[in-house]
Amino acid sequence: MSMTPALPIITVLCPAAGAASPGSLDRPGGLDKIESRAELRYTDAAGLGDAVDGAQALFLWDFFSPAVEQAWSRTASLEWIHVAAAGVDSLMFDELGRSEVTVTNAQGIFDRPIAEYVLTAILAHAKDFAGNLRHQQRREWAHRETHRVQGRSALIIGTGAIGRETARLLRAVGITVTGAGRTTRTQDPDFGTVLDSAELPRHIGAFDHVVNAAPLTPQTLGLIGEESLAAMRPGAHLINIGRGESVDEPALVRSLQAGHLSGATLDVFEEEPLPQDSPLWDLETVTISAHMSGDVLGWRDALAEQFVHNAERWLEGEPLKNVVDKAKGYVPSSSRPGAAEI
Amino acid sequence: MSMTPALPIITVLCPAAGAASPGSLDRPGGLDKIESRAELRYTDAAGLGDAVDGAQALFLWDFFSPAVEQAWSRTASLEWIHVAAAGVDSLMFDELGRSEVTVTNAQGIFDRPIAEYVLTAILAHAKDFAGNLRHQQRREWAHRETHRVQGRSALIIGTGAIGRETARLLRAVGITVTGAGRTTRTQDPDFGTVLDSAELPRHIGAFDHVVNAAPLTPQTLGLIGEESLAAMRPGAHLINIGRGESVDEPALVRSLQAGHLSGATLDVFEEEPLPQDSPLWDLETVTISAHMSGDVLGWRDALAEQFVHNAERWLEGEPLKNVVDKAKGYVPSSSRPGAAEI
Repeated sequence: MSMTPALPIITVLCPAAGAASPGSLDRPGGLDKIESRAELRYTDAAGLGDAVDGAQALFLWDFFSPAVEQAWSRTASLEWIHVAAAGVDSLMFDELGRSEVTVTNAQGIFDRPIAEYVLTAILAHAKDFAGNLRHQQRREWAHRETHRVQGRSALIIGTGAIGRETARLLRAVGITVTGAGRTTRTQDPDFGTVLDSAELPRHIGAFDHVVNAAPLTPQTLGLIGEESLAAMRPGAHLINIGRGESVDEPALVRSLQAGHLSGATLDVFEEEPLPQDSPLWDLETVTISAHMSGDVLGWRDALAEQFVHNAERWLEGEPLKNVVDKAKGYVPSSSRPGAAEI
Repeated sequence: MSMTPALPIITVLCPAAGAASPGSLDRPGGLDKIESRAELRYTDAAGLGDAVDGAQALFLWDFFSPAVEQAWSRTASLEWIHVAAAGVDSLMFDELGRSEVTVTNAQGIFDRPIAEYVLTAILAHAKDFAGNLRHQQRREWAHRETHRVQGRSALIIGTGAIGRETARLLRAVGITVTGAGRTTRTQDPDFGTVLDSAELPRHIGAFDHVVNAAPLTPQTLGLIGEESLAAMRPGAHLINIGRGESVDEPALVRSLQAGHLSGATLDVFEEEPLPQDSPLWDLETVTISAHMSGDVLGWRDALAEQFVHNAERWLEGEPLKNVVDKAKGYVPSSSRPGAAEI
């Protein structure tokens, strides 16, 4: 008796489509390219346990869902999880870390858009574009002196792909860039010097702009705390496009209220959405965006296409790209691929 | 009988110091370096006629004053006027144009700061930083998709020093730049191609961002009129850091209200300060600043220092720098010096 060999099963965890289409899923586009070679099981978080049972691969299109940990007992056949996000912190848990399951992420998709966001933050702060808008709302013609950006200094915490692309872009407009990471070095091609991020308070006072571009790991949890904030140069500007939990938010609020920092541009927060009663909303020196710094037009298509490319490699038995070091919580630089373009 | 040779006279036209010091003048700093070699006569606009009588040089520290034309009958001995501004349009009048008086300007001081302002405008528009602020004011967590800047196109109208510095800075972040000016050419070192600014409606529709960096001359008065605005790409963004009179402001308002343009970032206006009843104030797609794009911290010291350097050349009988072609209304590129840094 002959049998058709079973297709490998890829489970796709999707968010709900929202109020416009109640009960349906917000599915990624472009997966038709692998439909003939894999069984695709689309599910929401509630159905994940059943949908992942027997599956070899799991695509977390709903990239901030903690559902995987809850369904872990059903993943005996799982070989590979791909997360459509640059940070894997909301996925990781101990059993996954200890398991043989390979985790890959969306490294590359967000690098340039986030670098552009950081440059926007630095320029808008220097030129006081928020002040322009507030004066405009009051119909005030208010001439002010603003700041040059050329020749100012920036410390970029996090030497991964996003931090590196940011370093290159800031240097292109004449900003002097230094890095901070786990491994100190000089003559880095993007950063020149990389300082020890475990000794931030010693170094942080030398910079006009401080950018957090680090993944959230045990080492970066609360990394920019009260002591580092106090050590920042008076009038300095903090930009966070990494994770909110890397910054001590109450200490940041105090520093801003005291006028020690001249501003903060924040795309990520300890709690998201930012709670209605957060004092950050009302601070005129703070610019808030809704965890969107990398989400340029076309980002969803680019994320889906990146998964399809990796799935094609997996179906062919080729090595996967963007493999996360689960102990470190990010893709080590030695396995960095070329950045995808969107 | 021996006489001490009379020192040359330099008249310095100053604005009033303002409400804090009624009756006193807002004088430039650093002129002590030439005090022993010239008689410096400080005056306000009302006293200009008396103060310029017998003077060989005039420093327009009050750079937007039309007082020179009114005092013209008293300037028989005048050889040189230096204007502490990049644009000389508010100074120029027919008799000055026909006279032998040399006019120099502040070219170089504003190039990089204005280029940075233009880049800020492009990035802030692409990343919707104005939208961030409006949502923040309403405590709204509003995730949106924004735009990449890399790979987008910009047309820079005006191929002088400011336009060139802007071209270099935009190219440094991956924007594709084209120029528009009086003289068409290809293989320009900064612009690549320079299109004919007299034929804007034919060309303007090919660009995402259109930057007016031209001086105000008869050729650039109303240059960006109804026809050019209508020919712009739907969703395009206009930036004006040149002169307000180069843009047909009512036509611009109509284009913005109709949603044809996605935005305008305006530092200059037909009338300044922008009148309280201008419809521009209320348009959410418009960003207004108060003719300050080049005025970074230290700009006044840099302007005064630039005048002192030129005065030292003049006192030594050396050729002046930044000599304006009075027929054209700007410093031709053949006499362009290195840009001053502030």
